Amino acid sequence: MLNPFFSKKESILLSEIFKLLNLESKLDLAAIRIQDIKDLNSASKNCITFFHSKKYSELAKSTKASYCLTKDNLKEYLPSTCQSIIVENVLIATALITEKFYPDSTNDDYDTTVIEIEKTSFDEIKHGKNVLIGKNVKIGSNCQIGHNTIIEKNVHIGENCKIGSNTIIRNSIIKNNVTILDNCIIGKKGFGFFPNKEKNIRYPHIGIVLINENCEIGCGATIDRGSMSNTEIGKNTFLDNQIHIAHNVKIGANSIIAGQVGIAGSSIIGSNVRIGGQAGISGHLKIGDNVDIAGGSGVIKDIPSNTKVMGYPAKNIREFLRENK
Amino acid sequence: MLNPFFSKKESILLSEIFKLLNLESKLDLAAIRIQDIKDLNSASKNCITFFHSKKYSELAKSTKASYCLTKDNLKEYLPSTCQSIIVENVLIATALITEKFYPDSTNDDYDTTVIEIEKTSFDEIKHGKNVLIGKNVKIGSNCQIGHNTIIEKNVHIGENCKIGSNTIIRNSIIKNNVTILDNCIIGKKGFGFFPNKEKNIRYPHIGIVLINENCEIGCGATIDRGSMSNTEIGKNTFLDNQIHIAHNVKIGANSIIAGQVGIAGSSIIGSNVRIGGQAGISGHLKIGDNVDIAGGSGVIKDIPSNTKVMGYPAKNIREFLRENK
Amino acid sequence: MLNPFFSKKESILLSEIFKLLNLESKLDLAAIRIQDIKDLNSASKNCITFFHSKKYSELAKSTKASYCLTKDNLKEYLPSTCQSIIVENVLIATALITEKFYPDSTNDDYDTTVIEIEKTSFDEIKHGKNVLIGKNVKIGSNCQIGHNTIIEKNVHIGENCKIGSNTIIRNSIIKNNVTILDNCIIGKKGFGFFPNKEKNIRYPHIGIVLINENCEIGCGATIDRGSMSNTEIGKNTFLDNQIHIAHNVKIGANSIIAGQVGIAGSSIIGSNVRIGGQAGISGHLKIGDNVDIAGGSGVIKDIPSNTKVMGYPAKNIREFLRENK
Repeated sequence: MLNPFFSKKESILLSEIFKLLNLESKLDLAAIRIQDIKDLNSASKNCITFFHSKKYSELAKSTKASYCLTKDNLKEYLPSTCQSIIVENVLIATALITEKFYPDSTNDDYDTTVIEIEKTSFDEIKHGKNVLIGKNVKIGSNCQIGHNTIIEKNVHIGENCKIGSNTIIRNSIIKNNVTILDNCIIGKKGFGFFPNKEKNIRYPHIGIVLINENCEIGCGATIDRGSMSNTEIGKNTFLDNQIHIAHNVKIGANSIIAGQVGIAGSSIIGSNVRIGGQAGISGHLKIGDNVDIAGGSGVIKDIPSNTKVMGYPAKNIREFLRENK
Repeated sequence: MLNPFFSKKESILLSEIFKLLNLESKLDLAAIRIQDIKDLNSASKNCITFFHSKKYSELAKSTKASYCLTKDNLKEYLPSTCQSIIVENVLIATALITEKFYPDSTNDDYDTTVIEIEKTSFDEIKHGKNVLIGKNVKIGSNCQIGHNTIIEKNVHIGENCKIGSNTIIRNSIIKNNVTILDNCIIGKKGFGFFPNKEKNIRYPHIGIVLINENCEIGCGATIDRGSMSNTEIGKNTFLDNQIHIAHNVKIGANSIIAGQVGIAGSSIIGSNVRIGGQAGISGHLKIGDNVDIAGGSGVIKDIPSNTKVMGYPAKNIREFLRENK
Repeated sequence: MLNPFFSKKESILLSEIFKLLNLESKLDLAAIRIQDIKDLNSASKNCITFFHSKKYSELAKSTKASYCLTKDNLKEYLPSTCQSIIVENVLIATALITEKFYPDSTNDDYDTTVIEIEKTSFDEIKHGKNVLIGKNVKIGSNCQIGHNTIIEKNVHIGENCKIGSNTIIRNSIIKNNVTILDNCIIGKKGFGFFPNKEKNIRYPHIGIVLINENCEIGCGATIDRGSMSNTEIGKNTFLDNQIHIAHNVKIGANSIIAGQVGIAGSSIIGSNVRIGGQAGISGHLKIGDNVDIAGGSGVIKDIPSNTKVMGYPAKNIREFLRENK
């Protein structure tokens, strides 16, 4: 259920892929059709995957993908069932092919499909003034939507949800009993791109934002949708005001996140986690369950479950307080 | 003048309170009527109060309340004029009873009473497009209100005030000559709740936001209203952009608060205080007058008047700079 | 091209300036006309300049201004071609005279000149609902503007630009191929004022915001216009969500700035700079080219080109990590 909203091309000829990458089609593979592009772990036969850093070599060894975008010095890790395609920049090549499979996934233009809620079948829902609703929107019973809010295309909202005023949502699934306060922006593409001299190249974002039952999202939140996976907030997790959740972040259930916290891309946060105000969590980290992160901390490495940390870089809270009397 | 806006039930039968708390009404008190719920200090006879932590034992000894929600190991501190009511979780019990006295204080749904300003008696006020005004709003002479701004119910605005565009205000008193810039959200309930497995329990917020004369509030501020007391900004205090002020915070006069600062719940800041950009102040602290807090600092304990601090945890600025050359 | 938008008085009599400052016009200069007020460096003959701190004494020695607002202990640094005007508070005097030359530069009231885009010549531009356009706006071909966005007066937008929803822009020049996402506020006056007991005195802001080609500005940004110079973002620089850029800041080309970063007033950032999430940069600093600033860092002094820094205060990243294992 990664991308219920972004229509995928059914398959792409390998010859097209070579052309896109400006590669000579050395192999006698031009007529082969590729089904999808996925990461090393989730790719299946007839998929293309990508492998750009040695730290994923264990995953590479067991990938089921038939083809892999990679570098010359990494190809040896791939199994014999997976044919390497050597490119200059693995991530740019991945972006190009992903965009080919999912043509809408880099387009984050304002939604031109929206119309006034009074002109839609959602007119019966309790709503404020100037509410706009896009295409492919579902809203459950007993919801309410505040003034000037825009539910853009590709949004499913469960039952008993409260959406505040001046909020914009797109490409998101909101489960039952969720409250989203004012001025939030949920489901925009994340800050993912490849630096490039003249004009940076935007990475496709085919993930969604998934907010589970009973969550509350405070005012002014920005929650970006995922690139190759979803951004997820677990059940009954509460976010205070002015929080930024980057693409691909996953937060567990029953967590409490205070004001102005920022969580960088692809970090995985456990359940029953408490994060104090203004704390920051770097990207690609794993924070366990039952972790307490003191306000103002800067977390730059993984944190095991059942620990309390503080400081920048965040360390065991007792140690930090002993050293900083 | 804690809550001019939240209508209070005149009194509640003690038997109702026992029922609400699932307690047996052992005492022959069922017919007694309770007037209000207040903290240990401000409660008077015929009020119910609450006492959940030993650190308030001095206050408990002199409370004038007739009844007190507390724990078995704390009841000994109460005076003989105050009868203890032992509950499993003092704060949840307090929330339940507060909500009973102030039924509107947990409802932060978007305001359904608002109408276009052109249809109100405020039509003569200088205003932008799409301005909405709720019930029980007062606006003084010579004010202006920007585009798309919503003055929700229970807002009193003084004279010569400027409210920007895209701003939402509710449950607030704004004194004369105040400027509030764009995209602010002022007067929403704070981030106060009791963690609870399936669905956290929201704490009632019966306080307001009080912004005194000559203040300026920058773009994108979130200033939450108080729970059991008010959130207050003193005269001629200026806030830069993207600032978060949590519930029950009080800031003195002539203070200057730079961009992206966050102040956690119930902290009391003095007058003539300067806080640099991105500094954070933990909850329940007391910062004196004439204090300088360097940008980026994290304050986790009280700061006496006339001091300059820096660092995380914030300490004397000279000491910090000596240690961090 | 400092201020294409703020109309300047052609000249002001020196006698008027003395009157404004409550100074006796001792000198026989009353009939002399002053052309402009500029800083020590850019002032020319017949301009008035200002000199308030010894650290600018080298600049003072070579100023071409004919008159200079200064203090008694600084006047000796001025060349014989520049006559000193001794005032109690140099910066307040500067503010008063600047406002006299540029009468609109302290007025940041919501723009009353805006009208619905459908009623303007920009009707053909791709646009959402409730878009408002002010006076003196130019928009190039192939642009788009999202819902509820307000392009206030004095905005020039190039070609192929995408402006999101709920965004407000004023006093800004946006070059070609720029993307500005939702909820941004660009071009407001900065947080510049002189503390004053009863009511602080606002400093005039006659600069603009200049965003160069190919930039992307994330959701919820606040980018303030300059006071005596412009705020500038270089070509192909990308900003993530919830970023605050204060007045007079200049950022070079091809830089990447992650979420929730704040840059205080008048700091100059080079090209190819990467700033991690939540990092803060103090005011009046100079950050070189090719600098990496780790997320969460607090920069309080200049950083030379080609260095990586981390920590608070930010220092060489290796040193920081060695000391903070």
